[in-house]
Amino acid sequence: MSEFSNVTVVREANIYFGGAVTSRTIIFADGTKKTLGVMQPGEYTFNTDAAELMEFLAGELEYRIGDSGPWLPMRAGESFTVPAKSAFTMKVATVADYCCSFLA
Amino acid sequence: MSEFSNVTVVREANIYFGGAVTSRTIIFADGTKKTLGVMQPGEYTFNTDAAELMEFLAGELEYRIGDSGPWLPMRAGESFTVPAKSAFTMKVATVADYCCSFLA
Repeated sequence: MSEFSNVTVVREANIYFGGAVTSRTIIFADGTKKTLGVMQPGEYTFNTDAAELMEFLAGELEYRIGDSGPWLPMRAGESFTVPAKSAFTMKVATVADYCCSFLA
Repeated sequence: MSEFSNVTVVREANIYFGGAVTSRTIIFADGTKKTLGVMQPGEYTFNTDAAELMEFLAGELEYRIGDSGPWLPMRAGESFTVPAKSAFTMKVATVADYCCSFLA
Protein backbone atom coordinates (compact mmCIF):
# COMPACT_ATOMS: atom_id res chain seq x y z
CA MET A 1 0.00 0.00 0.00
CA SER A 2 1.10 3.59 -0.59
CA GLU A 3 -0.12 6.76 1.05
CA PHE A 4 -0.41 10.51 0.61
CA SER A 5 0.18 12.23 3.93
CA ASN A 6 -0.59 15.74 5.16
CA VAL A 7 -3.29 16.27 2.55
CA THR A 8 -6.85 17.56 2.45
CA VAL A 9 -9.57 15.28 1.12
CA VAL A 10 -12.84 16.59 -0.24
CA ARG A 11 -15.50 14.47 1.43
CA GLU A 12 -18.04 14.38 -1.38
CA ALA A 13 -17.26 12.11 -4.31
CA ASN A 14 -16.95 13.35 -7.90
CA ILE A 15 -19.56 11.26 -9.74
CA TYR A 16 -19.50 10.81 -13.54
CA PHE A 17 -21.38 8.64 -16.04
CA GLY A 18 -24.17 7.92 -13.56
CA GLY A 19 -21.70 6.64 -10.96
CA ALA A 20 -19.74 4.36 -13.26
CA VAL A 21 -16.76 6.60 -12.66
CA THR A 22 -16.27 8.15 -9.23
CA SER A 23 -13.33 9.83 -7.55
CA ARG A 24 -12.18 11.78 -4.49
CA THR A 25 -10.22 15.01 -4.76
CA ILE A 26 -6.97 15.18 -2.79
CA ILE A 27 -5.40 18.61 -2.21
CA PHE A 28 -1.73 18.85 -1.34
CA ALA A 29 -0.01 21.43 0.86
CA ASP A 30 1.43 23.11 -2.25
CA GLY A 31 -2.10 23.52 -3.65
CA THR A 32 -1.75 20.87 -6.34
CA LYS A 33 -4.54 18.32 -6.72
CA LYS A 34 -4.94 14.66 -7.58
CA THR A 35 -8.02 12.51 -7.80
CA LEU A 36 -8.22 8.89 -6.67
CA GLY A 37 -10.92 7.16 -8.64
CA VAL A 38 -12.62 3.93 -9.65
CA MET A 39 -14.06 3.07 -13.06
CA GLN A 40 -16.60 0.32 -13.63
CA PRO A 41 -16.30 -1.64 -16.90
CA GLY A 42 -17.44 0.57 -19.77
CA GLU A 43 -16.27 3.25 -22.20
CA TYR A 44 -15.63 6.80 -21.04
CA THR A 45 -14.34 9.95 -22.69
CA PHE A 46 -12.88 12.80 -20.67
CA ASN A 47 -11.63 16.22 -21.72
CA THR A 48 -8.54 17.75 -20.13
CA ASP A 49 -7.93 21.31 -19.12
CA ALA A 50 -4.40 20.94 -17.70
CA ALA A 51 -2.33 17.98 -18.82
CA GLU A 52 -3.02 14.84 -16.76
CA LEU A 53 -1.04 11.80 -15.63
CA MET A 54 -3.27 8.72 -15.24
CA GLU A 55 -1.66 6.04 -13.04
CA PHE A 56 -3.39 2.67 -12.69
CA LEU A 57 -3.40 0.78 -9.38
CA ALA A 58 -5.75 -2.00 -10.51
CA GLY A 59 -7.74 -3.03 -13.53
CA GLU A 60 -7.33 -3.63 -17.26
CA LEU A 61 -8.33 -1.24 -20.01
CA GLU A 62 -7.46 0.24 -23.36
CA TYR A 63 -7.11 3.94 -23.95
CA ARG A 64 -6.82 6.36 -26.79
CA ILE A 65 -5.74 10.00 -26.87
CA GLY A 66 -7.94 12.11 -29.14
CA ASP A 67 -10.52 10.35 -31.32
CA SER A 68 -8.50 8.68 -34.00
CA GLY A 69 -5.25 7.30 -32.53
CA PRO A 70 -4.55 3.59 -31.86
CA TRP A 71 -6.11 1.84 -28.85
CA LEU A 72 -3.31 1.09 -26.39
CA PRO A 73 -3.43 -1.44 -23.52
CA MET A 74 -3.11 -0.27 -19.92
CA ARG A 75 -2.59 -2.42 -16.79
CA ALA A 76 -2.10 -1.92 -13.06
CA GLY A 77 1.30 -0.37 -12.45
CA GLU A 78 1.29 1.46 -15.78
CA SER A 79 0.37 5.05 -16.61
CA PHE A 80 -0.22 7.42 -19.49
CA THR A 81 -0.16 11.18 -19.93
CA VAL A 82 -2.79 13.27 -21.66
CA PRO A 83 -1.90 16.70 -23.13
CA ALA A 84 -3.73 19.81 -21.95
CA LYS A 85 -6.89 20.86 -23.76
CA SER A 86 -7.44 17.44 -25.35
CA ALA A 87 -9.64 14.39 -24.91
CA PHE A 88 -9.04 10.75 -24.11
CA THR A 89 -11.22 7.67 -24.14
CA MET A 90 -10.90 4.54 -22.03
CA LYS A 91 -12.46 1.15 -22.65
CA VAL A 92 -12.42 -0.40 -19.16
CA ALA A 93 -12.51 -4.19 -19.13
CA THR A 94 -12.22 -4.81 -15.38
CA VAL A 95 -12.85 -2.45 -12.45
CA ALA A 96 -10.01 0.07 -12.58
CA ASP A 97 -8.48 1.94 -9.65
CA TYR A 98 -6.56 5.04 -10.71
CA CYS A 99 -4.73 8.14 -9.53
CA CYS A 100 -5.04 11.21 -11.75
CA SER A 101 -2.46 13.99 -11.34
CA PHE A 102 -3.06 17.42 -12.85
CA LEU A 103 0.22 18.61 -14.36
CA ALA A 104 1.28 22.28 -14.38
CA MET B 1 -18.41 20.67 -0.15
CA SER B 2 -16.74 19.60 3.08
CA GLU B 3 -13.15 18.55 3.66
CA PHE B 4 -10.90 16.57 5.95
CA SER B 5 -7.57 18.36 6.32
CA ASN B 6 -4.18 17.21 7.57
CA VAL B 7 -4.97 13.55 6.90
CA THR B 8 -3.26 10.60 5.26
CA VAL B 9 -5.01 8.86 2.37
CA VAL B 10 -4.24 5.31 1.37
CA ARG B 11 -3.81 5.45 -2.41
CA GLU B 12 -5.17 2.01 -3.28
CA ALA B 13 -8.95 1.61 -3.15
CA ASN B 14 -10.71 -0.92 -0.94
CA ILE B 15 -12.72 -2.96 -3.45
CA TYR B 16 -15.68 -5.14 -2.41
CA PHE B 17 -18.39 -7.09 -4.25
CA GLY B 18 -16.42 -7.08 -7.50
CA GLY B 19 -16.08 -3.29 -7.46
CA ALA B 20 -19.73 -2.53 -6.74
CA VAL B 21 -18.59 -1.07 -3.44
CA THR B 22 -15.27 0.78 -3.29
CA SER B 23 -13.74 3.12 -0.74
CA ARG B 24 -10.60 5.02 0.26
CA THR B 25 -9.14 4.86 3.74
CA ILE B 26 -8.50 8.19 5.45
CA ILE B 27 -6.19 8.21 8.51
CA PHE B 28 -6.37 11.12 10.92
CA ALA B 29 -3.55 12.61 13.00
CA ASP B 30 -4.99 10.94 16.11
CA GLY B 31 -4.79 7.54 14.39
CA THR B 32 -8.52 7.15 13.88
CA LYS B 33 -9.76 6.07 10.46
CA LYS B 34 -12.70 6.75 8.18
CA THR B 35 -13.50 5.43 4.75
CA LEU B 36 -15.07 7.46 1.94
CA GLY B 37 -16.91 5.11 -0.36
CA VAL B 38 -19.31 4.66 -3.24
CA MET B 39 -21.89 1.90 -3.63
CA GLN B 40 -23.48 0.96 -6.94
CA PRO B 41 -27.15 -0.11 -6.85
CA GLY B 42 -27.39 -3.56 -5.29
CA GLU B 43 -27.61 -5.39 -1.96
CA TYR B 44 -24.60 -5.66 0.33
CA THR B 45 -23.99 -7.12 3.76
CA PHE B 46 -21.06 -6.01 5.88
CA ASN B 47 -19.85 -7.21 9.28
CA THR B 48 -18.51 -4.78 11.85
CA ASP B 49 -15.57 -5.15 14.17
CA ALA B 50 -15.74 -1.77 15.92
CA ALA B 51 -19.05 0.09 15.90
CA GLU B 52 -19.52 2.19 12.75
CA LEU B 53 -21.27 5.44 11.85
CA MET B 54 -22.46 5.44 8.22
CA GLU B 55 -23.13 8.97 6.91
CA PHE B 56 -24.67 9.40 3.46
CA LEU B 57 -23.60 12.22 1.15
CA ALA B 58 -25.65 11.07 -1.86
CA GLY B 59 -27.94 8.25 -2.87
CA GLU B 60 -31.05 6.43 -1.71
CA LEU B 61 -31.14 3.07 0.03
CA GLU B 62 -32.71 0.96 2.70
CA TYR B 63 -30.75 -0.65 5.47
CA ARG B 64 -31.22 -3.23 8.18
CA ILE B 65 -29.12 -4.02 11.25
CA GLY B 66 -28.71 -7.77 11.78
CA ASP B 67 -30.74 -10.13 9.61
CA SER B 68 -34.27 -9.79 10.91
CA GLY B 69 -35.01 -6.17 11.81
CA PRO B 70 -37.18 -3.79 9.73
CA TRP B 71 -35.84 -2.21 6.51
CA LEU B 72 -35.34 1.48 7.17
CA PRO B 73 -34.98 4.21 4.53
CA MET B 74 -31.77 6.23 4.27
CA ARG B 75 -31.13 9.39 2.22
CA ALA B 76 -28.33 11.86 1.60
CA GLY B 77 -27.75 13.89 4.74
CA GLU B 78 -28.85 11.05 7.01
CA SER B 79 -26.82 8.48 8.93
CA PHE B 80 -27.10 5.33 10.97
CA THR B 81 -24.92 3.58 13.53
CA VAL B 82 -24.06 -0.11 13.59
CA PRO B 83 -23.03 -1.81 16.85
CA ALA B 84 -19.65 -3.54 17.12
CA LYS B 85 -19.39 -7.21 16.19
CA SER B 86 -22.64 -7.20 14.22
CA ALA B 87 -23.80 -7.15 10.61
CA PHE B 88 -25.82 -4.78 8.46
CA THR B 89 -27.33 -5.01 5.02
CA MET B 90 -28.01 -2.22 2.55
CA LYS B 91 -30.30 -2.29 -0.47
CA VAL B 92 -28.90 0.55 -2.58
CA ALA B 93 -31.40 2.03 -5.06
CA THR B 94 -29.25 4.84 -6.52
CA VAL B 95 -25.48 5.31 -6.45
CA ALA B 96 -24.61 6.09 -2.84
CA ASP B 97 -21.72 8.21 -1.58
CA TYR B 98 -20.88 7.56 2.06
CA CYS B 99 -18.46 8.29 4.87
CA CYS B 100 -17.89 5.44 7.35
CA SER B 101 -16.41 6.31 10.76
CA PHE B 102 -15.05 3.59 13.02
CA LEU B 103 -16.17 4.35 16.57
CA ALA B 104 -14.00 3.59 19.60
